[in-house]
Amino acid sequence: MGKYDLIVVGSGPGGYVAAIRASQLGMRTAVVEQDELGGVCLNWGCIPTKSILHSAEQFDAVARGVPGLVADSVRPDYPAVIDASRKAARRLSRGVRSLMKKNRIDVLAGRGELGGPGQVVVRTQASEEVHECDRTLLATGSSEWVFPGVEVDGQRVLTSREALDSKRLPESIAIVGGGAVGVEFAYAYACYGVRVTLIELQDQLLPGFDRQIAEELARAFERRGISVLLGTSYRSLERPAEGVSLTVEGQGEEREVSADQVLFAVGRRARVDGLGLEGRGVEVKDGFIRVGEDLRTTAPDVWAIGDCNGPPLLAHAASHEGVAAAEFMAGVRRRGVDPLLIPGNVYCQPQVATIGLSEAQARERGHDVQVGKLPFVASGKAVATGHTTGFVKLVADSRYGEVLGCQIIGAGATEMINEIAFAMTLECSVTEVAEVCRAHPTLSEVLAEAALSAEGRAINF
Amino acid sequence: MGKYDLIVVGSGPGGYVAAIRASQLGMRTAVVEQDELGGVCLNWGCIPTKSILHSAEQFDAVARGVPGLVADSVRPDYPAVIDASRKAARRLSRGVRSLMKKNRIDVLAGRGELGGPGQVVVRTQASEEVHECDRTLLATGSSEWVFPGVEVDGQRVLTSREALDSKRLPESIAIVGGGAVGVEFAYAYACYGVRVTLIELQDQLLPGFDRQIAEELARAFERRGISVLLGTSYRSLERPAEGVSLTVEGQGEEREVSADQVLFAVGRRARVDGLGLEGRGVEVKDGFIRVGEDLRTTAPDVWAIGDCNGPPLLAHAASHEGVAAAEFMAGVRRRGVDPLLIPGNVYCQPQVATIGLSEAQARERGHDVQVGKLPFVASGKAVATGHTTGFVKLVADSRYGEVLGCQIIGAGATEMINEIAFAMTLECSVTEVAEVCRAHPTLSEVLAEAALSAEGRAINF
Repeated sequence: MGKYDLIVVGSGPGGYVAAIRASQLGMRTAVVEQDELGGVCLNWGCIPTKSILHSAEQFDAVARGVPGLVADSVRPDYPAVIDASRKAARRLSRGVRSLMKKNRIDVLAGRGELGGPGQVVVRTQASEEVHECDRTLLATGSSEWVFPGVEVDGQRVLTSREALDSKRLPESIAIVGGGAVGVEFAYAYACYGVRVTLIELQDQLLPGFDRQIAEELARAFERRGISVLLGTSYRSLERPAEGVSLTVEGQGEEREVSADQVLFAVGRRARVDGLGLEGRGVEVKDGFIRVGEDLRTTAPDVWAIGDCNGPPLLAHAASHEGVAAAEFMAGVRRRGVDPLLIPGNVYCQPQVATIGLSEAQARERGHDVQVGKLPFVASGKAVATGHTTGFVKLVADSRYGEVLGCQIIGAGATEMINEIAFAMTLECSVTEVAEVCRAHPTLSEVLAEAALSAEGRAINF
Repeated sequence: MGKYDLIVVGSGPGGYVAAIRASQLGMRTAVVEQDELGGVCLNWGCIPTKSILHSAEQFDAVARGVPGLVADSVRPDYPAVIDASRKAARRLSRGVRSLMKKNRIDVLAGRGELGGPGQVVVRTQASEEVHECDRTLLATGSSEWVFPGVEVDGQRVLTSREALDSKRLPESIAIVGGGAVGVEFAYAYACYGVRVTLIELQDQLLPGFDRQIAEELARAFERRGISVLLGTSYRSLERPAEGVSLTVEGQGEEREVSADQVLFAVGRRARVDGLGLEGRGVEVKDGFIRVGEDLRTTAPDVWAIGDCNGPPLLAHAASHEGVAAAEFMAGVRRRGVDPLLIPGNVYCQPQVATIGLSEAQARERGHDVQVGKLPFVASGKAVATGHTTGFVKLVADSRYGEVLGCQIIGAGATEMINEIAFAMTLECSVTEVAEVCRAHPTLSEVLAEAALSAEGRAINF
């Protein structure tokens, strides 16, 4: 089989991208995958959820009324929603396979783990192969975590993994966890008329996000009929004859929440077990593989990227780290990936997007903060298309007007945050954000207005 | 009444924005408007068309089939489409009125024209008032142009102005002119099942746009059932007992096109008549008011912005010129508006967006051109949402990789072009466009891939 310059363990958005970049840089590369190519993101995460959310959003628009669209007995066919999402995932997974071929990257099917120095062991039920390599890149990702003692049965008790494959549309669902995953599922189910109870331990949805954004989202969810329980902790789960019954505690009082199903979206855990880390001196800290800015672990020939090396647990962070790791190995890179330049999106409606520092975080760090806040009602495109909920907050340092962060809630947020990623990567000022001539009418014109607003000279508000 | 520092003639996206900027800069400002505030863009252009196109797009999606949406007898209620668009326009026009008030700008109702030096005359049917001002800004815009001899009756023969107010959905329509306006109406009508014949004199749709983009659009339109006649010129129009009959000529042969209605979208003409230009020495050239880079006309106290001073006839160009003119007057600006930094959008599906130089234009100007071309099938978001038609072309100079232009056809094009406007305004290279960490999955990730592709190192294609 010969020796590889690099073996990548895991073919998710971190691993397959790293393998391609490494191949471009001249390394003979293989990628190990025990499941479908593309990892969780592509098969059981970003992609199928976005397919479902897109279907749900369109269903919801029609159910609420599209101007000039008349139809009788609009009803959901939820199995078709799941089918479309599986089809999208399969198509993209096949795409990763042809990318591997095109880039002359070997795909080693099985479970990869570190062997002796310079070795990766690939196991299947039937076999065990040892491959030689100069370097190993761990891109093993993460999996759903649930509270100890909770038995996920895929029928009444689910995580996102089972929900993405479940064709049954329940009448009611309790969702434990109001982070991005919980919020997206709450939105999708609610669009299809499911009674949703969303339970979050912290006192806001999307913990860690700007509080005003979170409050706007909670209001939008409540208008939609989602019951949002904040500051409420999960206590226990019963399985009566039908459905589930949760005991939760909020404001010092216990209460029962009954529903057909419960979905736990309470976090993810890095896949670090059974990788042979200890034997090679790869240190794990707080459940994640420890790496330096160059993404190298405590073993000199082992790197780690993506979810398995710690937050942010985001596909595009993994991809950027994958590119960076390959470039560090090849000696063509100096700087790591700056976490402040990684956007984070939530694809419900109104959409939520964030990058860099929030207003509160910027103040905590001692910045003299300038904030431009602009509602979508000031956008002609938003009014013309009926998407006037939400606002943009652009956070800058008042000294030179440097953009420090941006938080958006509203239609188009998940795309327009990329423009601010651009601005921040280039260390732009709010003046520069304001000056760009954006096409009219577009939603992202609000970014210019938010920037002008930070300087006290908004035009359209 | 007192003397104004500035009187702006016309309250469209050029005029009202200029008035606000002037007021911010300390000028006592008035705006003259003979019709609704907001001008053509807001009342009879960008805004109502985008409302109609959004309704049409949603109708089309449902008619073609949304995964998981079942409905019986889906049918259009076209008057409701028009009503929604009028409502959006009225809401935004009211918004401009409150902006005028907030910025302490007087609104003078009537038709404005230049009087003697330092004077603007405002006429209504009942009155004529003379107002004194230090400076005048002409922002009179443009109106629909039709071939001489064509009588627009609003029933069978329309321009966009009449079409935007016509609640009748014809069974068939001939559209003369395959520019942005003609293309958008062709798409909207086709979504509602109208048989559309689109007639364009040039040998491509969207003359002036990149040819590959135009060809992709023509293919998409033909798949949709639109009959696209290129290289075909309008000859004459007959009005039989019902409908219309056009004689057109293509490939040296005459043919008849019959339809219920004909819509002429063959161009716009600047509103320069009856403005008293000659008496004040304001020169008109080729139908447009002549201005310098500082937007000043040949009269030292008269400026002109937007459609009335020439191409590009785009709302956001007018707004940017409006800001620039006010800043030139106040002495706080040095540079004019660079036409290469003004994006242009077409809001059909697939959407079309363009900025800067096309590949052909860049070669004509002697650039050693580097092109990154990337299809939307390489985008996970496009696959997940079923929008895989189209591609991005990113045009750069190979010496330093400076981005010279970008042309996009596909979903989300009209928003993501703003990111390239950003890149070009900041004189970025393709390397910089590639390096930005965009959120996954988003459509604008294809911009990064196109940039990588220009450098021969695409990851996902």
